[in-house]
Amino acid sequence: MSKTSKTNSIQQQAPLLPTIDSPEDLRRLSVEQLPQVCAELRQFLINSLSVNPGHFASSMGAIELTVALHYVFNTPYDRIVWDVGHQAYGHKVLTGRRDLFSQNRKLGGLSGFPNPDESPYDTFAAGHASNSISAALGMAVASKLNGDAPRRNVVAVIGDASISGGLAFEGINNAANTPNNLLIVLNDNDMSIDRNVGSLNSYLAHITTSKTYNNLRYKAYRLLKKLHLISDNGRGSILRFNNSLKSLLTHQQNIFEGLNIRYFGPFDGHDLPKIIRVLNDIRDMEGPRILHLRTVKGKGYEPAEKDPSTWHAPGRFDAESGQRLEQPAKVNEPVKYQDVFGQTLLELAEKNKDIVAITAAMLSGTSTSVMQEVYPERVFDVGISEGHAVTFAGGLAKEGKQPFVAIYSSFLQRGYDHIIHDVALHRRRVTFCIDRAGLVGEDGPTHHGVFDLAYLRTIPNLTIASPRDERQLRHLLYTAQAKDCGPFAIRYPRGKGHLADWHCDMEELEIGRGEKLTDGNVLAVLTIGPVAHEAAKAIEKAAEEGIDAAHYDMRFLKPLDETILKEISERGLDIITVEDGTVNGGLGSAVAEWLEDNNIYNIKLQRLGIPDKFIPQGTPAQLAELCGIDADTIYRTIKAVADKNTASSK
Amino acid sequence: MSKTSKTNSIQQQAPLLPTIDSPEDLRRLSVEQLPQVCAELRQFLINSLSVNPGHFASSMGAIELTVALHYVFNTPYDRIVWDVGHQAYGHKVLTGRRDLFSQNRKLGGLSGFPNPDESPYDTFAAGHASNSISAALGMAVASKLNGDAPRRNVVAVIGDASISGGLAFEGINNAANTPNNLLIVLNDNDMSIDRNVGSLNSYLAHITTSKTYNNLRYKAYRLLKKLHLISDNGRGSILRFNNSLKSLLTHQQNIFEGLNIRYFGPFDGHDLPKIIRVLNDIRDMEGPRILHLRTVKGKGYEPAEKDPSTWHAPGRFDAESGQRLEQPAKVNEPVKYQDVFGQTLLELAEKNKDIVAITAAMLSGTSTSVMQEVYPERVFDVGISEGHAVTFAGGLAKEGKQPFVAIYSSFLQRGYDHIIHDVALHRRRVTFCIDRAGLVGEDGPTHHGVFDLAYLRTIPNLTIASPRDERQLRHLLYTAQAKDCGPFAIRYPRGKGHLADWHCDMEELEIGRGEKLTDGNVLAVLTIGPVAHEAAKAIEKAAEEGIDAAHYDMRFLKPLDETILKEISERGLDIITVEDGTVNGGLGSAVAEWLEDNNIYNIKLQRLGIPDKFIPQGTPAQLAELCGIDADTIYRTIKAVADKNTASSK
Repeated sequence: MSKTSKTNSIQQQAPLLPTIDSPEDLRRLSVEQLPQVCAELRQFLINSLSVNPGHFASSMGAIELTVALHYVFNTPYDRIVWDVGHQAYGHKVLTGRRDLFSQNRKLGGLSGFPNPDESPYDTFAAGHASNSISAALGMAVASKLNGDAPRRNVVAVIGDASISGGLAFEGINNAANTPNNLLIVLNDNDMSIDRNVGSLNSYLAHITTSKTYNNLRYKAYRLLKKLHLISDNGRGSILRFNNSLKSLLTHQQNIFEGLNIRYFGPFDGHDLPKIIRVLNDIRDMEGPRILHLRTVKGKGYEPAEKDPSTWHAPGRFDAESGQRLEQPAKVNEPVKYQDVFGQTLLELAEKNKDIVAITAAMLSGTSTSVMQEVYPERVFDVGISEGHAVTFAGGLAKEGKQPFVAIYSSFLQRGYDHIIHDVALHRRRVTFCIDRAGLVGEDGPTHHGVFDLAYLRTIPNLTIASPRDERQLRHLLYTAQAKDCGPFAIRYPRGKGHLADWHCDMEELEIGRGEKLTDGNVLAVLTIGPVAHEAAKAIEKAAEEGIDAAHYDMRFLKPLDETILKEISERGLDIITVEDGTVNGGLGSAVAEWLEDNNIYNIKLQRLGIPDKFIPQGTPAQLAELCGIDADTIYRTIKAVADKNTASSK
Repeated sequence: MSKTSKTNSIQQQAPLLPTIDSPEDLRRLSVEQLPQVCAELRQFLINSLSVNPGHFASSMGAIELTVALHYVFNTPYDRIVWDVGHQAYGHKVLTGRRDLFSQNRKLGGLSGFPNPDESPYDTFAAGHASNSISAALGMAVASKLNGDAPRRNVVAVIGDASISGGLAFEGINNAANTPNNLLIVLNDNDMSIDRNVGSLNSYLAHITTSKTYNNLRYKAYRLLKKLHLISDNGRGSILRFNNSLKSLLTHQQNIFEGLNIRYFGPFDGHDLPKIIRVLNDIRDMEGPRILHLRTVKGKGYEPAEKDPSTWHAPGRFDAESGQRLEQPAKVNEPVKYQDVFGQTLLELAEKNKDIVAITAAMLSGTSTSVMQEVYPERVFDVGISEGHAVTFAGGLAKEGKQPFVAIYSSFLQRGYDHIIHDVALHRRRVTFCIDRAGLVGEDGPTHHGVFDLAYLRTIPNLTIASPRDERQLRHLLYTAQAKDCGPFAIRYPRGKGHLADWHCDMEELEIGRGEKLTDGNVLAVLTIGPVAHEAAKAIEKAAEEGIDAAHYDMRFLKPLDETILKEISERGLDIITVEDGTVNGGLGSAVAEWLEDNNIYNIKLQRLGIPDKFIPQGTPAQLAELCGIDADTIYRTIKAVADKNTASSK
């Protein structure tokens, strides 16, 4: 059905969506009226997201599922736990937030993910993947212990990508053997999955351990490979990383049944009457169950169905034509840090054959895809499994490879132990390319990469750096592979860089050496990473008023550049540190420690950074101001310190 | 065969073990000679471990496997990656470390776990479970990329408990679809597994989704439950957490085959000729494979076979009689912190019905078993899955339960993201009972719980405390459940406490309030946790020389007690901080930040703590001295600060 004909069909009837202010209103409707609700909900999302961008295709694919869940279950008494919340926009609209939806992902508006502080219908944080089963299991067990009457149902809704995370497996493994009535809905929308893999598996079942049989099996495998039906090298779209898991779902004896969880499916996730019937059937059953629904990402909007990856988060678009309204890139406008990273990695990989790259389900998000297109056999997208990504890198490094592990800062928290135990302990030469560091903006508190400086600084053997601009990023990447200094972390932010032209020859930087960007004799501003640019603006403004502040780009958090600190302390300059990481534990703390350890008491330190609380969503500029790491706050801090100095010297 | 007859059979032949200085020597023997090597190796471990305690039963069970691997594979060119290294003692003895084995787990001696810095035969760190498959996969992929000729084989050896960890699943999931020749050996030694669970599963296969069938299935389930063949409540030994996974292994279509990994087994892991034959058969096959061996923990030593849990790490024992030589507990001697935790948790749980407890495979290690014996339905041992443990707790807390999560400090690193995202973000009321905090002694660098203070301090909403003694531990546990102050972390060390009698009425402590233990007017020593006792000794010794040092137990790292800091700074006392966590990021850093933030420049700060490097194994006393947090170093620091003050005031 084309979207035009759907729009027409809506117009023939009195609209229903405006009458639904809560799921209770929805539950008053007949099953026959629900397809209309779905159509209106889709149109609402199209209209809304075309002007106020957000995640699009996932929620479009989950519309029938969302309506069915709220129709069959008694929410919010019954609990729905969404895994990775960008499938939950329909849920937000149906649960009393229709009118607020225009403020989605805005400062003071709705969170782009389920948020328990926002609505009783949002039961759990859903910014990091694979947590829904464990969280829902906790709720289901609690409900049994609490003796809730009537019985409280708990439903976890998890996508096919999320279920490959180790946490989801741990959840399933425990759900199978703890008394609970948890329902897991697997929202399987990965259209690139080819069921042939499952068929291959089926065909090859009942093998004995003899060589003959295994040879036969491998001949079959190779035949299929020759026919390009399967592929080993990462280029092919068929044999993908979590396929092995998914292939099981096509067997009668599938993994979930094996794990003692009753399995229902697969069903068409857009067949609303059917899924309502199934949900009603299995709702009151005892014990853990899994319902497997096949859905189409972007369902109901042709452009998105055709290209669901692009339409995952398409930006603004024309609702009628499906034309995306991206700003055309201006000449000499900075590109993204990610683009510079991707291009640079490729350049380095061309010359250094030991470089391999690893990403955890963020091939294009991190631009690791640039190297992957040229060297597919040296790039590993391990799916949502950050812990494995890090340990796998440790193994590669053990054998002389130089892995570059590109993971978003807040997701790398999942690999914290692995960095310590599997990489740093034996000084494995792994370079962590920590993307989305600092305040990420609209994705909000679950996605801000603000803890990394602090949680990494305590790890022995680790070098930690952050470039102030794209060229510095290139130099740091070059240095990490040119010089064996053990594990190396390079953090850089999301989005646009700062230079009109990022191209440059790469040079090896001295480990632990910062750079004086501006001289000054009133005080010194110490920055790490791209906040340097905010600081530079502030310093310029202060200079206009005759306040002469020096600016040092520390570049390395660890080892800390003591030469700079000595120079400053010898000159008796007060210090302001600025960082886009938590003010506790990062650069400011390192400088405070250094001053105390070196018995330097004649200079004052003022630390600017992310305060000790979770930071909401908003534009990066709004959030920088909120956290006090914007040019204006830095300027005011400079002025205050300078004024105090003037006062005290009078 | 009794151990006596085994000893006799050895004596009839010329001993072989003394002739084996490397696996090459082993490979020169005939297959017929290998059982003798196994018998001698067992006797060697019995003799050695009876006087120099360590992990016993796991290595005894892996003897044939160890001999077979080194016999069939060309180590160290071929790689063996041990998962949780305490099964690897036999491996250490066969790889040139026989004479060093008397120094196992001692300062300057052998590490109790495989250690790549110690031997080329030790390929990867193996202190934290479930990492072997990911690490070995990295090595196998690297070897393919490197084009190693002859082909380099990589073998991961993983136990049945470790394979339930999410990281192992992530590894398997990726191993299935990356080109590699990895061999995974599953050393399945859990004797409490009852294959009936597998049979139940088999019996219940081929189920449809209809209610009738599911009802039938549940009737069968209930019947078995009635017959006490399975159990839901955690008391039963049959239906255990990772059984669900293991039950799959008895099916022809098992989980590994489903995941596109060829499966061989199960075979008797003590049938040496058989496993050598199988290993030879599958050694050169292409692609990932798994070999499933059933072994007996403690094999070859009767007392250990009968009670493998006790003999996991039995301490000293009489080799001939099997009598364990534990020191009998003296009257009025302190008990372990773990005992106090376990008893106190039970006391609290008796009165507060909302308390539930969670542990990750450390039921007796953490003494959560004490509560479990009385309230099995409120205690959850989730197996090796620390991430799930934390997120599961978040779900329980969402529904009003008060989870106490008891996990070892260094293992909780696996749950770091989960603490931030699934607990702290929405202020879920979860109490983290962080066991084995600080220097743990003989288990070495992978097990020291020294990062927690620093990595937790950056997390918003989190209260962090550490008790100086057993009674303080009781007060803190009481406070955490009496008062809703959001997530609460309480860290305490391994082993013996400090009080002759830990019993006391529990009282609610003020959050963020420390305690002055000793007054003094020369300087102030600030401690957190049981290092208070080392500090007290140092202060006493200094007092004998007329140096009058104050002692404050900060008790809380966060919120920091600013009243104490103000008092000290108003009195102009210099500060020495002492903590058994990393000196970067913990208490000393927090005090440095506070001093700088409050523009206090008249007092000096000296920070003692774990230096920025990995700390080896040794006795806790040796390591405290090594790190400079023992009484003597604190005393010398007090003296130095006092002397400087005297000098400067002259």
